[in-house]
Amino acid sequence: MDLEKPVRTELSELGEFGLIDHLTRDSISKNPSTVKGIGDDAAVINNAGKLTLVSTDLLVEGVHFDMMYTPLKHLGYKAVAVNISDIVAMNGVAKQVLIGLSVSNRYSVEALEDLYDGIKQACQVYDVDLAGGDTTSSVSGMFLGITVIGEVDADAVVYRNTAKENDLVCVTGDLGGAYMGLLLLEREKAAFKGDPNMQPDLSGYDYILSRQLKPEPRTDIIRLLQDIKVKPTAMIDISDGLGSEILHLCQDSGLGCRLYEEKIPIDATTINVAEEFKISPITAALNGGEDYELLFTIHQKDFEQIRLIPGISVIGHMTGPKDGTYLVTTDEQLVEIRAQGWNALRR
Amino acid sequence: MDLEKPVRTELSELGEFGLIDHLTRDSISKNPSTVKGIGDDAAVINNAGKLTLVSTDLLVEGVHFDMMYTPLKHLGYKAVAVNISDIVAMNGVAKQVLIGLSVSNRYSVEALEDLYDGIKQACQVYDVDLAGGDTTSSVSGMFLGITVIGEVDADAVVYRNTAKENDLVCVTGDLGGAYMGLLLLEREKAAFKGDPNMQPDLSGYDYILSRQLKPEPRTDIIRLLQDIKVKPTAMIDISDGLGSEILHLCQDSGLGCRLYEEKIPIDATTINVAEEFKISPITAALNGGEDYELLFTIHQKDFEQIRLIPGISVIGHMTGPKDGTYLVTTDEQLVEIRAQGWNALRR
Repeated sequence: MDLEKPVRTELSELGEFGLIDHLTRDSISKNPSTVKGIGDDAAVINNAGKLTLVSTDLLVEGVHFDMMYTPLKHLGYKAVAVNISDIVAMNGVAKQVLIGLSVSNRYSVEALEDLYDGIKQACQVYDVDLAGGDTTSSVSGMFLGITVIGEVDADAVVYRNTAKENDLVCVTGDLGGAYMGLLLLEREKAAFKGDPNMQPDLSGYDYILSRQLKPEPRTDIIRLLQDIKVKPTAMIDISDGLGSEILHLCQDSGLGCRLYEEKIPIDATTINVAEEFKISPITAALNGGEDYELLFTIHQKDFEQIRLIPGISVIGHMTGPKDGTYLVTTDEQLVEIRAQGWNALRR
Repeated sequence: MDLEKPVRTELSELGEFGLIDHLTRDSISKNPSTVKGIGDDAAVINNAGKLTLVSTDLLVEGVHFDMMYTPLKHLGYKAVAVNISDIVAMNGVAKQVLIGLSVSNRYSVEALEDLYDGIKQACQVYDVDLAGGDTTSSVSGMFLGITVIGEVDADAVVYRNTAKENDLVCVTGDLGGAYMGLLLLEREKAAFKGDPNMQPDLSGYDYILSRQLKPEPRTDIIRLLQDIKVKPTAMIDISDGLGSEILHLCQDSGLGCRLYEEKIPIDATTINVAEEFKISPITAALNGGEDYELLFTIHQKDFEQIRLIPGISVIGHMTGPKDGTYLVTTDEQLVEIRAQGWNALRR
């Protein structure tokens, strides 16, 4: 045979973000209502001044969750919570959610009731309406497709690509906990597989387990910033780790950054467990995913307003386009920040 | 052991629509912007008079499509087309689409390029913007989550539950073709498995194959009805077969219906192939899915406007709540219409 072999590029060569960029690179919006298409936390649609935000997400059994340690009620809650987080990251308020559910007949109706109990509980807590969806079978396992719709005033929307040089970089809450919770659950799972009579002892780990299993979107921060009249210059939620997200802000805004290791908020439990796993806590914060905290930039003039708010840490500043993206370590070394966040396609 | 065994209800006991109803039965909308939640072709969100429509759909390899005979470009096109059809069924215009894609590394980048070529082609044809999405890996196979966003004027939106007694029932195009196309492809697949050297001969079947592989949403009909100033009293798109969809209109509007077999439009190719498969063509039209034509009701006063339009057939009328849902056959028998449409959960 002398036929030319068709080119085959493996998905792993591009990675998740590379793949999205590659597949959507020549997309041009035609509708005037499309204010923002691909490339932010949510799509932005103009409706006579008020903006509609839409974000969609797929959660896949065996990739994003493991049925061995994820209670279905928590899964439902988390599925809604992390999508609300995408709307929050645009400075918006989530209003509706649509749930696409694909399951094999391995699941019972009662199992799906648990899932929906969690979905409805998150809707209740965050005043979001369950407004539709699609339910179908799968050949194996469970797939969840979540679409959340929110709104924001046209002058309040915050994008990823609008940070300015010298803006301060802020982060909410603390980082790395959700990843440590995941490592802990994975360890208990492995131990259970080795000895099914083993009883997992997870006492003392409540905080990092709840960070992994029941993350909460920071709607409170959005309200608080509105109250003190501080509008972030750019914002993103931390789903893939601080390192990956700050690179998004830098690349999209065409800037560099300096972050300071000593300023990065990490909870004591996270530090202890990281040490148990022989991982440096800063690595957990930079590369661990799923904290769903907010990373945002503010103008320097807003520093006095921000600095006294508990739960917001100023961790660095934006620099010029040629200054690179660096972490200044506690011993004053400059370490380049590179993308090492969650990459579901690499698994 | 004397512990009570937990109840397990199989998914098949409820079926797809039963499951959605069951899981969402106590959902109450809290946001005033949620005009319509679960239970129509799309969610309806109010934005200062203009309504935003949002519909979401999951397509699952091995359930909704078979890689053996579905070219990826067609799959991408169809995924967008059938979601646009949901917006059309609300009398709206689709504006944006978000694509959630979950694939195993069995797929190459080139394969996904083909998929996106189809997605982009449909966006091009229907003036829809690709505005975002999510890409992730799967343990096996491909899952597509599609969300489409559209708009419609507040006084133009058409629901499923607003048909009135004596309204005329109309359908666009012809029915049953997509199902016959599917049976044909399944037959060729089985023959190929029996003898891999076999060359499939699909000549003469172009029409029904394109009905299955490349359905087109009836945006033309929406424009045409606007031009002649006829607003349907209720509308739904035919994704699960005429029988299932007319039952939705009847149940949601609290009415019965009479449809006339002789009036139901079926293409000659569909009739021939149905006979090849020893299926009655009317069964293909009633129970076959995926035609993506529109089923709608109009007030009797609009009959003269409608009757001369090629591509719209008046196939019956709505009756009182206690009159039942019947098909009047060509030999004047009354046959009750029951739900036998596509039920992906039963497979």
